[in-house]
Amino acid sequence: MSQEKSSYPVSKRGPEDHEVRDQIVTAATEHFSRYGYEKTTVSDLAKSIGFSKAYIYKFFESKQAIGEVICTNCLREIEDEINAALNKTAYPPEKLRVLFKSIVDSSLRLFFQDRKLYEIAASAATEKWDATIAYELRIQKILQGIIHEGRQAGDFERKTPLDEVVKVIYLVIRPYLNPLLLQHSIEFNADAPMLLSNLVLRSLSP
Amino acid sequence: MSQEKSSYPVSKRGPEDHEVRDQIVTAATEHFSRYGYEKTTVSDLAKSIGFSKAYIYKFFESKQAIGEVICTNCLREIEDEINAALNKTAYPPEKLRVLFKSIVDSSLRLFFQDRKLYEIAASAATEKWDATIAYELRIQKILQGIIHEGRQAGDFERKTPLDEVVKVIYLVIRPYLNPLLLQHSIEFNADAPMLLSNLVLRSLSP
Repeated sequence: MSQEKSSYPVSKRGPEDHEVRDQIVTAATEHFSRYGYEKTTVSDLAKSIGFSKAYIYKFFESKQAIGEVICTNCLREIEDEINAALNKTAYPPEKLRVLFKSIVDSSLRLFFQDRKLYEIAASAATEKWDATIAYELRIQKILQGIIHEGRQAGDFERKTPLDEVVKVIYLVIRPYLNPLLLQHSIEFNADAPMLLSNLVLRSLSP
Repeated sequence: MSQEKSSYPVSKRGPEDHEVRDQIVTAATEHFSRYGYEKTTVSDLAKSIGFSKAYIYKFFESKQAIGEVICTNCLREIEDEINAALNKTAYPPEKLRVLFKSIVDSSLRLFFQDRKLYEIAASAATEKWDATIAYELRIQKILQGIIHEGRQAGDFERKTPLDEVVKVIYLVIRPYLNPLLLQHSIEFNADAPMLLSNLVLRSLSP
């Protein structure tokens, strides 16, 4: 990257750009998780990392751009956990149960174990950052894969259009996927995954 | 009422207590809907109605107590609309569709047409006022009635425990019933009632 023509000429040969970006993201994650995302400015961040504000702006055009990377990392972590859980079973109805359970468990753990990072996720969901939209689409893709597989195996009915089934199951799980809704659904978290996946499975019976 | 022994002796014979209460509630509804619930104090309210603060406190122990009555009135209005819609049909599956549609339509109209009154509903939902809890239980009761009726008519399956079915359908509709969730679900309002009631009806097929 540092060999490429850049609109930000680097005065001397230093670490690779992606290394500096990673370094900023790591420090920002640490800083935000301690002091919160909303209240922190890029100046605060620069001071705490020991970089100049101008240097940070060479790598990220705004605080949100840093937040987006952190958010993407968080959502990837949830997704990795979901995929790891799904890989343990091959039976589509069971995959659906596992999907519901792991979405609720991973989202809760990540969004609420660390209340300060929750702020970033909440901003992302409120302002519909690309990271959130991409994540929601990927979850719908996973859902679509499970339904498709279950239909082929004869486990699920095939009369209802696939798109409708994916969309409505996504609507059912959305309150436990979106951090803005999740914060108001916590009292139901113990029962919801089981009850909702049972309902969905009854609706899918051939 | 004014004949009864009261802990607040009235100095001269005036209007009945319930009349004064209604008068305060009407004026407060008007005032809150213009200036918001959160920012208004009982002093502001007293000034605007032309009563003394002490006089208002004779009838309501707090601002929340007034808010509770307003909230109850709002929720009753939603419920009346839901019941009026339900009375137009006798077929349980159709009743379920109507229930979903009318919950979404009435909640949206009442909570969002008047953003300032929405604040009261949001406080009520956040702080779990009695008015909200009672409303949620009444909606569950309506739901239970429809499921029970559909089971007796042979329209719905009877294997799943009735309580589980009621609870899970309530969970499915909750994002459109609870104002805190509804504000984050608006983009789905056009499709959600139809998609979700179709899903629920598929799950109920005998």
